[in-house]
Amino acid sequence: MFSCVGYAASSATAPLAPFTFERRDCGPLDVKIDITHCGVCHSDIHTVRSEWGESSYPCVPGHEIIGRVAAVGDDVTRFRVGERVGVGCMVNSCRECPSCQNGLEQYCDATPTWTYNSPDPAFPTAGAHTFGGYARHIVVDEHFVLRVPENLDPAAAAPLLCAGITTWSPLAHWKVGKGHRVGVVGLGGLGHMAVKFAVALGAEVTLFTTSPGKIEDGKRLGAHRVVISKDAAAMASEANRFDFILDAVSADHDINAYLGLLRQDGHMVLVGLPEKPMAVGAFSLVAKRRSLSGSAIGGIQETQEMLDFCGKHGITSDIELIRIDQINDAYARVLRSDVKYRFVIDMASLPEKL
Amino acid sequence: MFSCVGYAASSATAPLAPFTFERRDCGPLDVKIDITHCGVCHSDIHTVRSEWGESSYPCVPGHEIIGRVAAVGDDVTRFRVGERVGVGCMVNSCRECPSCQNGLEQYCDATPTWTYNSPDPAFPTAGAHTFGGYARHIVVDEHFVLRVPENLDPAAAAPLLCAGITTWSPLAHWKVGKGHRVGVVGLGGLGHMAVKFAVALGAEVTLFTTSPGKIEDGKRLGAHRVVISKDAAAMASEANRFDFILDAVSADHDINAYLGLLRQDGHMVLVGLPEKPMAVGAFSLVAKRRSLSGSAIGGIQETQEMLDFCGKHGITSDIELIRIDQINDAYARVLRSDVKYRFVIDMASLPEKL
Repeated sequence: MFSCVGYAASSATAPLAPFTFERRDCGPLDVKIDITHCGVCHSDIHTVRSEWGESSYPCVPGHEIIGRVAAVGDDVTRFRVGERVGVGCMVNSCRECPSCQNGLEQYCDATPTWTYNSPDPAFPTAGAHTFGGYARHIVVDEHFVLRVPENLDPAAAAPLLCAGITTWSPLAHWKVGKGHRVGVVGLGGLGHMAVKFAVALGAEVTLFTTSPGKIEDGKRLGAHRVVISKDAAAMASEANRFDFILDAVSADHDINAYLGLLRQDGHMVLVGLPEKPMAVGAFSLVAKRRSLSGSAIGGIQETQEMLDFCGKHGITSDIELIRIDQINDAYARVLRSDVKYRFVIDMASLPEKL
Repeated sequence: MFSCVGYAASSATAPLAPFTFERRDCGPLDVKIDITHCGVCHSDIHTVRSEWGESSYPCVPGHEIIGRVAAVGDDVTRFRVGERVGVGCMVNSCRECPSCQNGLEQYCDATPTWTYNSPDPAFPTAGAHTFGGYARHIVVDEHFVLRVPENLDPAAAAPLLCAGITTWSPLAHWKVGKGHRVGVVGLGGLGHMAVKFAVALGAEVTLFTTSPGKIEDGKRLGAHRVVISKDAAAMASEANRFDFILDAVSADHDINAYLGLLRQDGHMVLVGLPEKPMAVGAFSLVAKRRSLSGSAIGGIQETQEMLDFCGKHGITSDIELIRIDQINDAYARVLRSDVKYRFVIDMASLPEKL
C-alpha cells in the first residue's frame, strides 16, 4: 500500500478538505495512474451529501479521471507507462453476468464496484470503500482503464468519462445518426455533450431549454434549432416530429410535454434522475407506439469507442478549470447551475504530500 | 343508401335501444357485410357515455365485427359473396402518410376513420359520423375488411378484431417468442388474449393478477405461472426476470411495481389507458436501460396475420354469447368485471326491420 493525498468530506455536512489515505499497490492486472485532471459531476455532490442513500466517510469523490500511467502490474498487456488514460464511474464488476459478458458492466447483476463510495473487495483489508479521483493517484484493474487520445485537451476530456459516455451510450444504442431528428432537453453538463455528439453523428439537433439566454450558446455548440420549452405554441408546433429525444434534466419536470413530440415508434431516453416519480400519460405512449426508456452511463467497450470518436472528431467538453482548493465554491456554483458546462480540477494544484 | 337496423344510444345517459339508420350503398371498392356477431368492448361503453370526449348521437357502437360478405363493389378483388369476414376498429385512413404506407393505419397522421363515432367522409351527405357493428349490416372499403378463418367459431372470433389485435400487435412488434419470459398484467378481455397468444408464440408466460380467484383460470388459459401482485414478497422475487411485460390494465395502478421486474433492456408495453397519469420512477428505467412503451390496436396487415395465426392454432376468445336486448345488462356487468372474458352479441337476435 502507499500513501495518497486527496480531498475528502468527513461527513454529509462538512466541506471537502485535504486528506491522506492508503491506496493498494499495483496487482498483476492493475494500472497505477498519476491523475492530472478530474471532472466535477453533480453525482459527486449528491454522494458527498448522502443524498443518494447513506454514504461512507471519509468520502473522496470524482469519477471523471484523466491521467498518465505511472506503473503497470506484471500481467497488464494493454497499457504502458506514460500513456494517457482515463477512468470513469466503475473500477470493477462481476465479469460473469450477461450484462458484463455483453460489455455493459454498468448493468452488472452484482452491481459494479463504483469508483467512489462503493464496497471495495480489492482493498487489502476488509470493510473498505472506494476512493475516487479527487486525488493524486488511483490504482485500477486494466479492464476498467480507458485509452484517451493524445490530441484531446486532457482537462476538457475529463468529463467525457461520465457526462460524455452517459449521453453517448443511448445515442449509440438507439443508432442515432443521419436523417434523424433528435431533441436534447436541457443544456447542462450532460446536455451540452449530447448536442455535440448528436451533431457529430449527423442528426438534425433541436435543443429544448427553459432559458432564452441559452439560445446562442446552443447554436454555438452545434444545435440546428433551439425551442424554448416554456413557449406552449412553439412546443405544440413540434408535435410528432422527433425520432429520438434525450432528456438530460435531473430536476423534476413535465415529461409528457416531450413525449407528444415523438413520431410513431419514437424513443425518449432519460439520463437524468429526477427525485420525484414522473407523471406519464398512457395516451402519449399508446397513441404512436412511443417509448420512454432510461440509460445509465455506458459500458467499458462503448466508452472506449466514444473516446476514439472524440479523438477523431476533436470533441471535448466545455469546461472551467479550477484548483482543488476551489472545490467547495465550485459545488455551490453547480447547485446554482452557474457553470458552462463542467468544472474540472487541475490536480497539479493538490500537493503530493500534506 | 339502404335502411339498416341497429342498437343506439340517443345520449350519454340513455340506454341502448333499437334504431333504424341509413348505410351507404356499396361503392366500387366496398364490401357489404351481413353482421352475424359483434363483441362488446369497454371502449363501446366509454364512447356511448361520452367518457372519451363528447360523442356524436345517436351512437351505434361495436368494433369487433364478424359476418359474411353480402355484396361487393365492381372493383373489389379480394373478397367474394359468402366469405366470412371481420371488421375491427378502423374503416378507413389517409393511405398516404408513413404510418399508412407501413401498414400501421392505426397511427395514421390524419387519424383513421374509426368504425363508430368518427367523422365519415365516405357517407353521401356531409356531417355524418360512422355507425358501428351493433347492427345487421355494414359497408366497408375492402382494404379494411379481414378474412376470418372458417375453422374458428365466429362468435368467439369476434373479440379478435379488437382485444385480439391489441395484444397481438405488441407481442409481434417486439418479437416475443421462444426463450422469452413474458409477464401479462391483468386477466380481462385483453389479458386473457395476451396469455393465449404469448403461450402459442412459445414464451414462458407469467400472469400477474390481484385476484387469487384467477389463479386456476390463468393456468387453464395456458399461463405457466401466476403471481398475485398484492403479495410484496412474491413480487420482489420476480425482480429483473422478464424480457417483456404486457400491461393490459386500464384502471389506475402502480406501474413501478412492474418496471423493476424487467431484466436489462426489457420492455413493458401498455395497451390499456388508465385515466390518471402514471407515476414512473426514473431509476426503474435508468437502472437497467428498461423501456416503457404504449401500443394501440394494430394495422390491417398484422390483423390479418393474427387471424391467420388464430386459424392455424385454433385460438379464439373465451366469450359469453348474448342477445342484443341484453346489451344494457351486459354493460353493467362489464363495469363490474363480471364477464369471462368478453360478451359477444348474436346479431340474429336483432330483427332485420323494426
